[in-house]
Amino acid sequence: MKKPLLMDLEDNVFLEDDALVVIDRRRLPREIVRLRCPDHEAVARAIEEMAVQGAGDIAITAGFGLYLAARQAEQGAAAKRDDALRAAAARLIATRPTGYHLAALVNKLMRRVGEAGDAVPASGVILSSLRRSLEAQRRISEDTGRHAETLLASGDRVLTHCFAGPALLYMLAFAREKGKELRVVCTETRPYLQGARLTAWSVSELGIDTTLITDNMAAHCMAKGMVNKLFAAADRVAMDGVVANKVGTLQLAICADYFKIPFYVLAYGGPDPGTLRGADIPIEERDPREVLEFLGAPISGPCVKGYYPAFDLTPAGLVTGIVTAAGVNPRQA
Amino acid sequence: MKKPLLMDLEDNVFLEDDALVVIDRRRLPREIVRLRCPDHEAVARAIEEMAVQGAGDIAITAGFGLYLAARQAEQGAAAKRDDALRAAAARLIATRPTGYHLAALVNKLMRRVGEAGDAVPASGVILSSLRRSLEAQRRISEDTGRHAETLLASGDRVLTHCFAGPALLYMLAFAREKGKELRVVCTETRPYLQGARLTAWSVSELGIDTTLITDNMAAHCMAKGMVNKLFAAADRVAMDGVVANKVGTLQLAICADYFKIPFYVLAYGGPDPGTLRGADIPIEERDPREVLEFLGAPISGPCVKGYYPAFDLTPAGLVTGIVTAAGVNPRQA
Repeated sequence: MKKPLLMDLEDNVFLEDDALVVIDRRRLPREIVRLRCPDHEAVARAIEEMAVQGAGDIAITAGFGLYLAARQAEQGAAAKRDDALRAAAARLIATRPTGYHLAALVNKLMRRVGEAGDAVPASGVILSSLRRSLEAQRRISEDTGRHAETLLASGDRVLTHCFAGPALLYMLAFAREKGKELRVVCTETRPYLQGARLTAWSVSELGIDTTLITDNMAAHCMAKGMVNKLFAAADRVAMDGVVANKVGTLQLAICADYFKIPFYVLAYGGPDPGTLRGADIPIEERDPREVLEFLGAPISGPCVKGYYPAFDLTPAGLVTGIVTAAGVNPRQA
Repeated sequence: MKKPLLMDLEDNVFLEDDALVVIDRRRLPREIVRLRCPDHEAVARAIEEMAVQGAGDIAITAGFGLYLAARQAEQGAAAKRDDALRAAAARLIATRPTGYHLAALVNKLMRRVGEAGDAVPASGVILSSLRRSLEAQRRISEDTGRHAETLLASGDRVLTHCFAGPALLYMLAFAREKGKELRVVCTETRPYLQGARLTAWSVSELGIDTTLITDNMAAHCMAKGMVNKLFAAADRVAMDGVVANKVGTLQLAICADYFKIPFYVLAYGGPDPGTLRGADIPIEERDPREVLEFLGAPISGPCVKGYYPAFDLTPAGLVTGIVTAAGVNPRQA
């Protein structure tokens, strides 16, 4: 077993020479391209343009963007620092509206800066808080994976969608350690192909039998008995149990329900207390060109419009269980 | 309104200088590439490699392949003609195992040749029978479209998958003629993108508001009320009502059922009397590389396997109605 590059965020998103380096996920697995982000604007664009993705990973990346903004502000007039930092925080939060963790982390870092007062440079406060968040997130992924692993039996054939993050890889790695025999089927996840580029590649590096399908083949695989459990991540869970995740999750959940296949969500935490109803979650709509073009080449006629909702909402009733670092379906405090 | 290139097969599959010319659908709509097939083997490969597709269209195309084989056989020794023609028929039938119409048409042409005896050259028998089939098929598409049009109300938002053939285009053209306002949403239909390349382009040429989505966005569009009717074709209908069609149809049908959206099948005819149960329909599995590569470039890791079932089976209970040239849900004789 190789440790997949995407298993630990430090290996693919890190500071170097006063800039943030992001291994560009749009080029994986064929090329390891280092994207250098010298300031928070470059970080915001890397998040918007999907060089990095995934609920937890974009949160930490945005946090590094805030650190770069603080460093830059500290080189300017003291009077303007707060405004500059607040503007950077707003810019970073605006990158991806659907997920919960990015805004939550950036807001937390801003609170830490406020609490620390003027005696300590904001950049130092942010960096030390961020390093704790990064470590906490790694532990959360590992703990979530450890709990999720208990849901797997030897012989299971797992279907997964998009890139469900390090928690999925930990789950599978733990299952392997225990000698469970697994097979994994990944949907390619158009239009960015995260399932093909990130998940299938990472899972196969764990030494697990991995099969790639296109997004329209999942129900057929369920009907044939090729998969018997569905796992996906969550970008946000509302208080009513609605799960926002990569578009396509909803139809997989509906089909899993139809075929009586359990659907488990790997979440970075419990529901967002600030989101009472799933219907309140803003669904990010991306540039229609990302649907109308493939690798930069148009694939349809000139009068055809595109529609690209990046996420969808799965009702609580279609979710068999939510797994967090606290366990499977932990009771909320 | 422009007449879409794919509305009448004669415009994109035709004889010229003793060869069959096929407008290569894999290159549409950006390029009009003429693929010249000088013999039945070239025709068989054009069908296998998806230069032409769709239940009715591949049937007629295979018929032209049989015609070319008969022409060639007639230039050789008389004693070998029957064997050559039978081998060509078997080769053409083997190209795509799931559909009903291709094998049915080739077998019918062979019967016509047998009935005509030695007095008439087989090529002449095949060509005249084939021309009648081509004209019959155009009428079937038109009649199917005319019946299907009665299912549409002004304001409908139609979801369709893959390329449901000329019948879909006739249905939409008739609805336009009657002044019904429609919008159409097309799934791109990976991996060959027929929905993007063929359907969305053709529908937009009819002057209808057309939106392209990826295959994982359909349920979200249903949840949002962006679509209220689902139409797809059928490659084969079994006697138990199971519909074999392009992979992805099953999950759209399951989601349509979940959202209480009617699902209509545009079929070129009634069920195949030779296929008692849907479970007996062979599902063509294509080269996994077609899933593992995109426009020739690998999209995943080297140890990842691909799986490419080209069709799936939708149970009768998920189908609201089957439309043929005889009407909607015509009672079987």
